[in-house]
Amino acid sequence: MERAVLEKNDRLAAFNRGWLAGRDVLALNLVSSPGAGKTTLLERTIRELAGHVAIRVVEGDQETSRDADRIRAAGAEVVQINTGTGCHLDASMVARALRELDPPRRSVVMIENVGNLVCPALFDLGERAKALIASVTEGDDKPIKYPYMFRASEVLVLNKIDLLPHVQFDVDQFLARAREVNPRVRVFQVSATRGDGIADWCGWIREQLTQAG
Amino acid sequence: MERAVLEKNDRLAAFNRGWLAGRDVLALNLVSSPGAGKTTLLERTIRELAGHVAIRVVEGDQETSRDADRIRAAGAEVVQINTGTGCHLDASMVARALRELDPPRRSVVMIENVGNLVCPALFDLGERAKALIASVTEGDDKPIKYPYMFRASEVLVLNKIDLLPHVQFDVDQFLARAREVNPRVRVFQVSATRGDGIADWCGWIREQLTQAG
Repeated sequence: MERAVLEKNDRLAAFNRGWLAGRDVLALNLVSSPGAGKTTLLERTIRELAGHVAIRVVEGDQETSRDADRIRAAGAEVVQINTGTGCHLDASMVARALRELDPPRRSVVMIENVGNLVCPALFDLGERAKALIASVTEGDDKPIKYPYMFRASEVLVLNKIDLLPHVQFDVDQFLARAREVNPRVRVFQVSATRGDGIADWCGWIREQLTQAG
Repeated sequence: MERAVLEKNDRLAAFNRGWLAGRDVLALNLVSSPGAGKTTLLERTIRELAGHVAIRVVEGDQETSRDADRIRAAGAEVVQINTGTGCHLDASMVARALRELDPPRRSVVMIENVGNLVCPALFDLGERAKALIASVTEGDDKPIKYPYMFRASEVLVLNKIDLLPHVQFDVDQFLARAREVNPRVRVFQVSATRGDGIADWCGWIREQLTQAG
């Protein structure tokens, strides 16, 4: 049964991937624990890339449209998906959201998944890459305790580095563990609230967009 | 299908609840996002209650036995369950772990669930209560964004209050939102690393144990 659900999802994800490629649209799937800072990173990214890159957003949450309101205030068009008891976005939800968003050619679609370091690892949405947002407040052992998500993610954004002086977190140890489960992962160290590292992260997005054409 | 899985789990959970009641054992199900501090809170609780209350622990993680090693070092017997790609503990896993742990009469069994603020809300393990560990670094909007877990939890432990000076987090707002989704929730504000609030939390556990007999 689980296999059938995943196979159906994989077919719909392949359709989404084609749909996005057909428009030259870059889609990233942002995954993390609850409260790691996905929405704050998105707000910062939208403002940083304003005037350069058109960004549209798919917001996934169990309940509320709080995150969609924040994204709209930051200046991007957004579609909110509420999953209720559901623990992740799936490809069919994203297919509907993409039609509604109608992203222009050569734009970026950021898909903010439900905060969950487990289930979204299994569900391809048709994205170019998963970007895992981790926070220094979560502890440096997360890559080996939640290896499926760290392995599924091409990009790792270590957020809240402004809090490093106040928490026990060994950055080198964390990165070594992340590379143990995913040797090729691309890492950005950022503070979405203070702005550290945001230029590098946005530079990477623009590079990816160039490769989309 | 999902309904059948949940119904089967609920029957096994009822069996666990009976098994625990038959021994006068108090079981708590600790749930949270990854990295909210469940294991650190457990270490502190075990040390605080040493000599007064016998504590045994069921550790749930996708991978590794790191948490079990920490719990053993803190002085409690522990059984580690690795769920692999699974996103939560279920009642059958806990039934096996209870037999292996063989908790003495009038002891406490702490079940540390997989770090996940979504899926464990649906799976009764036979516990007396779910205790949700939230961290001030996760943001004060989590109760309304993840209402199912906040509603399912009788106890709410707000952890890492030592970090309040360094993060944007409105405690009153957070508590108002938690009570909006769960009016009767019992709240403890703690710092598991520094020790604030631990005496109150441990006092509550001892009270619960008295009522178990």
